[in-house]
Amino acid sequence: MKKIAVILSGCGVYDGSEIYESVLTLLRIQQQGAHYQCMAPDIEQMHVINHLTGDVVAGESRNVLVEAARLARGEIIDLATANPDDYDALIIPGGSGAAKNLSTFAVKGAECQVNQDVKTFTQAMHRAGKPVGLICIAPTMTPLIFGDGALCTIGSDKHTASAIEAMGGKHQDCAVNGIVIDQERNIISTPAYMLAGSITEAASGINNLVDAVLQRADKELPRV
Amino acid sequence: MKKIAVILSGCGVYDGSEIYESVLTLLRIQQQGAHYQCMAPDIEQMHVINHLTGDVVAGESRNVLVEAARLARGEIIDLATANPDDYDALIIPGGSGAAKNLSTFAVKGAECQVNQDVKTFTQAMHRAGKPVGLICIAPTMTPLIFGDGALCTIGSDKHTASAIEAMGGKHQDCAVNGIVIDQERNIISTPAYMLAGSITEAASGINNLVDAVLQRADKELPRV
Repeated sequence: MKKIAVILSGCGVYDGSEIYESVLTLLRIQQQGAHYQCMAPDIEQMHVINHLTGDVVAGESRNVLVEAARLARGEIIDLATANPDDYDALIIPGGSGAAKNLSTFAVKGAECQVNQDVKTFTQAMHRAGKPVGLICIAPTMTPLIFGDGALCTIGSDKHTASAIEAMGGKHQDCAVNGIVIDQERNIISTPAYMLAGSITEAASGINNLVDAVLQRADKELPRV
Repeated sequence: MKKIAVILSGCGVYDGSEIYESVLTLLRIQQQGAHYQCMAPDIEQMHVINHLTGDVVAGESRNVLVEAARLARGEIIDLATANPDDYDALIIPGGSGAAKNLSTFAVKGAECQVNQDVKTFTQAMHRAGKPVGLICIAPTMTPLIFGDGALCTIGSDKHTASAIEAMGGKHQDCAVNGIVIDQERNIISTPAYMLAGSITEAASGINNLVDAVLQRADKELPRV
């Protein structure tokens, strides 16, 4: 049975993983007969957002791994301890945490950096020829992880798309229910809540992404 | 279009709403063509649990409404301000928060009390003949909200079932994919993570519960 690594970035759309995107991903993986293992970096969140008011909570700090554990019912491991050999594919859901905790894109834009644990694990999966799925804002990490020319989508936001291109990536507009595949590099992305107006809309693209990732995880691909 | 009230109790299985149960509920409501509105009481959580270790976090306090807002992408209202006339049905997902924040069942067992905002809103829905769905541990509130003889399930845990009976309720064992309906009182319950070993198992019962709630929300029922 295929085992899919899922990297989370906290718990909540404004400072962590987008909860619906994450749950929809896990649900689809299991509905399609595969297993998942959630993992997250053991680092402090960039900040804590009060999700009722949208304000930054002054003086409060939360840990990405500890908060992501909420989304995983405690069944989560430290990304730094995860062995790429144990997994057939990787999916990274979105939410601001992907651009605030897994990378610094939310603050630095095209000048951002990707968290070293995220980069190391994802590049190891990629080198082994395994498919990587990126959801919502997570594809902004594509050029820094996979190198120049890597293709992805974050939907149709021109500002974000320009930043991806400025980092050396290639962006392709995509509808909420669609996916964009970099065939050569085995990278799949979908806009989800970059465009979705509802949980069912988010599910339409995420289900397609998970299906494509699982399908490609079944193939014996040449190692990169 | 039917509009379903969903009462949340925080964000995380050990001190708030069970995230998968909540998301599965919202997803199914929308997939079946209805609307939802999340709401939660504006009170402090009983405590904060580190979901990685399972330990109580000493000295930390979080607000139920603020944390539940994570689960609702900020689209949530204070339960105290919700008008029962605006909704066709009510669903309360589980998670320890239902027994720690919405009631004191986790601490007091059969001697517990239900939060006054939860009781007032739910009883108003009930008096208007509208269906109420309760998931996982939430049905432990059934006798205190709906009175002696009200029928529910929390799965097959004998200790919890005995406490429900001691409070004047009636308990019926139920499989993870099943639902128990109190036909007379229009109450539907399902065990979800009281029994579920996976997100797809939880979905099997929750989908049935949501479908039954929506079906009954369509009927013109006599007011209680």
